[in-house]
Amino acid sequence: MTGPSEPTVVVLNGPNLNLLGEREPDVYGHDTLADVEALCREVAAQAGLSVDFRQSNHEGVLIDAIHETRTSAAGFVVNAGALTHTSVALRDALATVTGPVIEVHLSNVHAREEFRHHSYLSAIASGVIVGCGPSGYAYAVTRIAELVQQRD
Amino acid sequence: MTGPSEPTVVVLNGPNLNLLGEREPDVYGHDTLADVEALCREVAAQAGLSVDFRQSNHEGVLIDAIHETRTSAAGFVVNAGALTHTSVALRDALATVTGPVIEVHLSNVHAREEFRHHSYLSAIASGVIVGCGPSGYAYAVTRIAELVQQRD
Amino acid sequence: MTGPSEPTVVVLNGPNLNLLGEREPDVYGHDTLADVEALCREVAAQAGLSVDFRQSNHEGVLIDAIHETRTSAAGFVVNAGALTHTSVALRDALATVTGPVIEVHLSNVHAREEFRHHSYLSAIASGVIVGCGPSGYAYAVTRIAELVQQRD
Amino acid sequence: MTGPSEPTVVVLNGPNLNLLGEREPDVYGHDTLADVEALCREVAAQAGLSVDFRQSNHEGVLIDAIHETRTSAAGFVVNAGALTHTSVALRDALATVTGPVIEVHLSNVHAREEFRHHSYLSAIASGVIVGCGPSGYAYAVTRIAELVQQRD
Amino acid sequence: MTGPSEPTVVVLNGPNLNLLGEREPDVYGHDTLADVEALCREVAAQAGLSVDFRQSNHEGVLIDAIHETRTSAAGFVVNAGALTHTSVALRDALATVTGPVIEVHLSNVHAREEFRHHSYLSAIASGVIVGCGPSGYAYAVTRIAELVQQRD
Amino acid sequence: MTGPSEPTVVVLNGPNLNLLGEREPDVYGHDTLADVEALCREVAAQAGLSVDFRQSNHEGVLIDAIHETRTSAAGFVVNAGALTHTSVALRDALATVTGPVIEVHLSNVHAREEFRHHSYLSAIASGVIVGCGPSGYAYAVTRIAELVQQRD
Amino acid sequence: MTGPSEPTVVVLNGPNLNLLGEREPDVYGHDTLADVEALCREVAAQAGLSVDFRQSNHEGVLIDAIHETRTSAAGFVVNAGALTHTSVALRDALATVTGPVIEVHLSNVHAREEFRHHSYLSAIASGVIVGCGPSGYAYAVTRIAELVQQRD
Amino acid sequence: MTGPSEPTVVVLNGPNLNLLGEREPDVYGHDTLADVEALCREVAAQAGLSVDFRQSNHEGVLIDAIHETRTSAAGFVVNAGALTHTSVALRDALATVTGPVIEVHLSNVHAREEFRHHSYLSAIASGVIVGCGPSGYAYAVTRIAELVQQRD
Amino acid sequence: MTGPSEPTVVVLNGPNLNLLGEREPDVYGHDTLADVEALCREVAAQAGLSVDFRQSNHEGVLIDAIHETRTSAAGFVVNAGALTHTSVALRDALATVTGPVIEVHLSNVHAREEFRHHSYLSAIASGVIVGCGPSGYAYAVTRIAELVQQRD
Amino acid sequence: MTGPSEPTVVVLNGPNLNLLGEREPDVYGHDTLADVEALCREVAAQAGLSVDFRQSNHEGVLIDAIHETRTSAAGFVVNAGALTHTSVALRDALATVTGPVIEVHLSNVHAREEFRHHSYLSAIASGVIVGCGPSGYAYAVTRIAELVQQRD
Amino acid sequence: MTGPSEPTVVVLNGPNLNLLGEREPDVYGHDTLADVEALCREVAAQAGLSVDFRQSNHEGVLIDAIHETRTSAAGFVVNAGALTHTSVALRDALATVTGPVIEVHLSNVHAREEFRHHSYLSAIASGVIVGCGPSGYAYAVTRIAELVQQRD
Amino acid sequence: MTGPSEPTVVVLNGPNLNLLGEREPDVYGHDTLADVEALCREVAAQAGLSVDFRQSNHEGVLIDAIHETRTSAAGFVVNAGALTHTSVALRDALATVTGPVIEVHLSNVHAREEFRHHSYLSAIASGVIVGCGPSGYAYAVTRIAELVQQRD
Repeated sequence: MTGPSEPTVVVLNGPNLNLLGEREPDVYGHDTLADVEALCREVAAQAGLSVDFRQSNHEGVLIDAIHETRTSAAGFVVNAGALTHTSVALRDALATVTGPVIEVHLSNVHAREEFRHHSYLSAIASGVIVGCGPSGYAYAVTRIAELVQQRD
Repeated sequence: MTGPSEPTVVVLNGPNLNLLGEREPDVYGHDTLADVEALCREVAAQAGLSVDFRQSNHEGVLIDAIHETRTSAAGFVVNAGALTHTSVALRDALATVTGPVIEVHLSNVHAREEFRHHSYLSAIASGVIVGCGPSGYAYAVTRIAELVQQRD
Repeated sequence: MTGPSEPTVVVLNGPNLNLLGEREPDVYGHDTLADVEALCREVAAQAGLSVDFRQSNHEGVLIDAIHETRTSAAGFVVNAGALTHTSVALRDALATVTGPVIEVHLSNVHAREEFRHHSYLSAIASGVIVGCGPSGYAYAVTRIAELVQQRD
Repeated sequence: MTGPSEPTVVVLNGPNLNLLGEREPDVYGHDTLADVEALCREVAAQAGLSVDFRQSNHEGVLIDAIHETRTSAAGFVVNAGALTHTSVALRDALATVTGPVIEVHLSNVHAREEFRHHSYLSAIASGVIVGCGPSGYAYAVTRIAELVQQRD
Repeated sequence: MTGPSEPTVVVLNGPNLNLLGEREPDVYGHDTLADVEALCREVAAQAGLSVDFRQSNHEGVLIDAIHETRTSAAGFVVNAGALTHTSVALRDALATVTGPVIEVHLSNVHAREEFRHHSYLSAIASGVIVGCGPSGYAYAVTRIAELVQQRD
Repeated sequence: MTGPSEPTVVVLNGPNLNLLGEREPDVYGHDTLADVEALCREVAAQAGLSVDFRQSNHEGVLIDAIHETRTSAAGFVVNAGALTHTSVALRDALATVTGPVIEVHLSNVHAREEFRHHSYLSAIASGVIVGCGPSGYAYAVTRIAELVQQRD
Repeated sequence: MTGPSEPTVVVLNGPNLNLLGEREPDVYGHDTLADVEALCREVAAQAGLSVDFRQSNHEGVLIDAIHETRTSAAGFVVNAGALTHTSVALRDALATVTGPVIEVHLSNVHAREEFRHHSYLSAIASGVIVGCGPSGYAYAVTRIAELVQQRD
Repeated sequence: MTGPSEPTVVVLNGPNLNLLGEREPDVYGHDTLADVEALCREVAAQAGLSVDFRQSNHEGVLIDAIHETRTSAAGFVVNAGALTHTSVALRDALATVTGPVIEVHLSNVHAREEFRHHSYLSAIASGVIVGCGPSGYAYAVTRIAELVQQRD
Repeated sequence: MTGPSEPTVVVLNGPNLNLLGEREPDVYGHDTLADVEALCREVAAQAGLSVDFRQSNHEGVLIDAIHETRTSAAGFVVNAGALTHTSVALRDALATVTGPVIEVHLSNVHAREEFRHHSYLSAIASGVIVGCGPSGYAYAVTRIAELVQQRD
Repeated sequence: MTGPSEPTVVVLNGPNLNLLGEREPDVYGHDTLADVEALCREVAAQAGLSVDFRQSNHEGVLIDAIHETRTSAAGFVVNAGALTHTSVALRDALATVTGPVIEVHLSNVHAREEFRHHSYLSAIASGVIVGCGPSGYAYAVTRIAELVQQRD
Repeated sequence: MTGPSEPTVVVLNGPNLNLLGEREPDVYGHDTLADVEALCREVAAQAGLSVDFRQSNHEGVLIDAIHETRTSAAGFVVNAGALTHTSVALRDALATVTGPVIEVHLSNVHAREEFRHHSYLSAIASGVIVGCGPSGYAYAVTRIAELVQQRD
Repeated sequence: MTGPSEPTVVVLNGPNLNLLGEREPDVYGHDTLADVEALCREVAAQAGLSVDFRQSNHEGVLIDAIHETRTSAAGFVVNAGALTHTSVALRDALATVTGPVIEVHLSNVHAREEFRHHSYLSAIASGVIVGCGPSGYAYAVTRIAELVQQRD
């Protein structure tokens, strides 16, 4: 269990990720978003971090969440789903946060449609982890922990 | 009148379609969205289908609506308005539904600005009907009915 | 049966459509062009229209047919097949007709090769119906009937 | 002070503009959005106009706001932030308003990333003011006032 | 009247040019193709040339005509209509003729749709005359006459 | 001599190939199309195949020929000339044949104009032979024979 | 000889055309600009027009000349040389003249470098004559005369 | 009236702007360039600035003017007309000035031809004001005054 | 220590990675390639894997190494350096291996030059980890271990 | 057996072709490179040619091989594998040889990924044979023999 | 000092180069154009050449200078500044000179903005020297001298 | 003769440059690479520099050579031949050297094929010398000497 004074990693999930485990399991696997959340909490706890895990199908809700936590969070793990490829607003919001941002995609977007090869977020992220399934979230949380330690 | 056990066609309308009849009537005609809804209900009733008719200016609300009905609906008629050209998230949501999707546009988008010629939805739709005014919705509902019958 | 004084819908079919039912039935279905013609005649008869149904593998023969009927026909239903994507001449011919033009494609061209996504005809058509199989012809004939009635 | 019967300028601010003064002050300056609002009210009052000043991170909320005021407002001053570059829906909403639209950007978007050089709004705006900081809003309100006077 | 031993200018007209005078008279004028033919004959007669004037909506018929006359003709005046923009075959056929080729367009194709700005024929023509109406044919016949004289 | 029950290779030649030997001999060589036909017959006879050799300047005539032989022919050798670069209809027709298709070009199209570098046919052909002169036809007939034997 | 009250055709020649006859005679021919001027005067005189013939290597001088004559001239014959491909300012100046504009090029620009295929002037010209050598000027003056007569 | 020791705003006008009021008044309005100059002087006088107002159809003259004033001027208001879209040399000259540059366009260039959407000047300007008619000059002079005051 | 029968992860490093720690330390950090190798061995040992760690500036040497190990290795971790963006041959070699491939980049290539945004390897990799420094190698080795376990 | 004085065909094979028969047999077939070599030797012997057959995964080794044989070889058969699409250096080396070059690909590269459609070698080759499997090598050797005979 | 009968190198400098030494000294260095001229004269004198050194901000003046000297000059050293990237007219003028042309740029244009990477002049120059500061002029004059000697 | 303690210029030559003097002498001249080396040594000796002159057809060998000398060399003269246009790895290696890099090409690459117009090396070079034949190497060595002197 993580205490109230622990640094927090905000994990943001974009549109359609609430369907994880149901939608195209051959592409996205059988784990649900709750499974991913549990994995993130487990990895974070080992590194002394708490997790603020959110999902929304609304771009505006995601931006509001970033504004709310942008200076307090130790770092951000972001799987923006399809908004990755279309949202400059999300990029601009993430460009204002003080901690590092790690972009995550469950599937290998580079092996899918052409329009999924470009991300508006990558250029302002510190790292990008693609095609490693739920483990990608675990690596991202670990990376945030490393960067927080380096900064301290 | 359609009973509670009838299969349902979800008809989704995107941004600015609530202004139908008021906005640029020379492009979009004088019928209101309520007129379109009535037409859909009439055509659906003849085919033994009920209609769940919605409009929103919010991408997230449309995605939520698709998630809510994606396995229960017999099919989807979608006029996503301007989101047609920009929303990968809507495409991804529609790619998860079990019934067929028919894309509809009131005006002939191919005779308008270049950026209206590309649709993110067409590739995952089963059919596309463009420039037939409100009748396009009627054809789309009819098409859903045909596809439902073929499947049974 | 339709009498000689009824308005006529010209239904034009381009290259390779004579193979309908034989060629790639998983893409184009099992109906033959004769089945499509019968469907058109049935729908037209209900609307008090007669049908002039033609197919040719020759671009020039199709253009000649348009010239022959361009002022007498009530409207045109055109499935130009592969010429859709390359023939400016067909576009120019259709731009001279007095009645409305509805473009039809049996399969969803937007889900196929990139070069099938652009149509030279769409911009001068009044409507476009894609991926609805033979029913697309029926909807197109219906649409012509509606437009003829509005004009009268 | 402006009375209830005065014509109203709607000033719309898009995603992330609520962070003005905090976010990248070397790009956007130290004025907050409240400072900008005060400036707009001051300039408008001198011209006999009232101001309806709004900000949202949600595209849909901005579109709803436009629909609510589109026929009553004397004009619109719009800084859509990042939505400028991606939202066709916002463009379509603004295309339905009866008064003039002036597009504003605090920073010089043309000196920034390539994807910020194109605006979906400019073509339907009457004027565009870029890189003049908060003063750009003042000039825009002044311009609305001039256009309202010319129309009367 | 021109005798049998006079050199001949072949004037080729492509798809839809048989509709001249009827089709979009505000674009193409009120002269018919017969009027154009008469003008060509008159100008040619003054220069001691006879005229072989043809029109077809069939690409293949035009190519056959070029093959038939390619070594006997003094020169070619070609208004290929819409084939101008798509037919490499016509270009290849014209590249085999022994006399000069002048390309003609009645309307100013550069002021029309983007796809009319490129011609496959121009690079193998000796001259191009655009937007001068039927007079363009007269200038082209005159040019052939000049080039024939220079060669002799 | 080949008997009536022998499998047949259809050899199709597109626009302008009837001029072979006369047209640009430095590009296409001095052999005539009759020489090419004789070579094809000789090679085919050795492999126990008969040859159906055709040429047309009409796209439609070529498509009709494919339709006529598409299920009976053992294979197709196709030199579509300039139609290679523009005819989707020819591609669609060749996509319906049951035997293999070998695309042939006499000259090295890749060393000529940019627009000759793309072929609509290559993607649906089984092999492509370029720049080997009339021998390319011989190799193609040989290849058809090999593929027919493998299938048996 | 033409009197002072005759309508005037302004013939403008852009950069490097003063070298005509000296520069690349295999491309541009052996006639000098003085020869071209004499030809223009001869053709104009027959049509009752006088000629104002100018050449400059300075874009600004050409624009000044257009301003000076833009409402008094009966029409303009313009060979802008290399400015054809780069000068929007010249296009804007020519867009303000009251008479027709005929664009002329001595050589066939479409058979030369890619950057010579686009002209900023063609879209605002009434006609374009390319690759006819000095005779192109004669045809252009003739065309101006025809258009002047039609207008009267 | 402004005294000799007042800071000076240089207002530069490019090709064709001398025709203001005469040329396409529906696009550019009925004010003449003298009216614009008077407006600039009035606004500048209120801010304690003098105005050096120039127009030329010659790129070189404009560059010379910039060189002459580049270190003495308080700022530059530049409407380069069509040179906006083509002149790198003007950009380079303006990049050497010590005061701020505000780019102005009378009409909304973004609602006109594609080639008017890009400006070589915007990236080195501090602000850009488009489509506000002569008032755009007034806002630009005001902006220069503000920037001068901030600097002091 | 790992025994001879343990599954092996091949870690391949492309051109210039031997300079790690010396070359642009602000981009690539102060760790040397030996440090990275030690980290890989440590992580692999914990997962019961041995490591075959190689670096070469020669594309051919890297391809030979892949051929040598392609069926025996449990998986591949590949940081191909600049060859990522140019080598189809490396892609083809990696497409022949039986175990999974994880692509790694130390720096965030998406925040660097445009030509570093495209990778020929990503589409045939199972995952891609970018911008996580040496830790990216650790995550990649971990991912290989997970995939090996899933397969068993 | 071929004697020492026979002319030699150099057959060059690029990266990954040593895996032939093992790698993706459904794409490249079950023949090994040794089988291909044997076929080449058999065909060459019949034509009185000897064969110098090489394979390398190193671009530099292939270039060295070309330099070594470039004036002595009767001709070159080149399957450069993936280097086809990326190596200008190989193209330059092949451009220096005195005999003809025939480019060969086992699979139909035009039906695979977009980046395999362009070859740097085709423009300097005399012929190209694609998608005919190992037989393509046989045809290429035959073609070299024909060209050698024509030259003698 | 060089006598009147010595061959002359014309050194042309385009817009803004008169500011050399003042403008962005970190990019262009502290030498003035007078320093560059002195260097050219020194190097030329050693090679027995005289120098005609000019600068203008006017494209037309530069073209006139080329015309004036194009047959008398031994060669041209041209630093056209920003006109390099936009002036086809300058290219055409330089294409008419009888001696060699060496293009020079003080700074490394390839490390600057994208639009400075293309030069209209390079293709007609005999050599190009970039990023060597004033020494580039010296090398260019030396190169002219070498070419003049080779020719003699 | 240069002593062991003299600073060294590394001169690197890429693929096919060993053929200099033999290969296309009309493009590359009759001098051999040994002649170029002698010229470099002569010029360097005059400037008190020694020369390390290398050539390889292997990208990896060139990279190894750069690594070996990257901190000891006074500067680099690089003619990478065809690798100029394709090798990011070479660029990255050259970006790590401490002395200046001058890129050299014997022929004028800008007057050759389109794909030779772009260089991956230019942006990280300090200067580029093109089309001056072997003298280009001499100028480059001289430039290195100048830069070394400025630095001291």
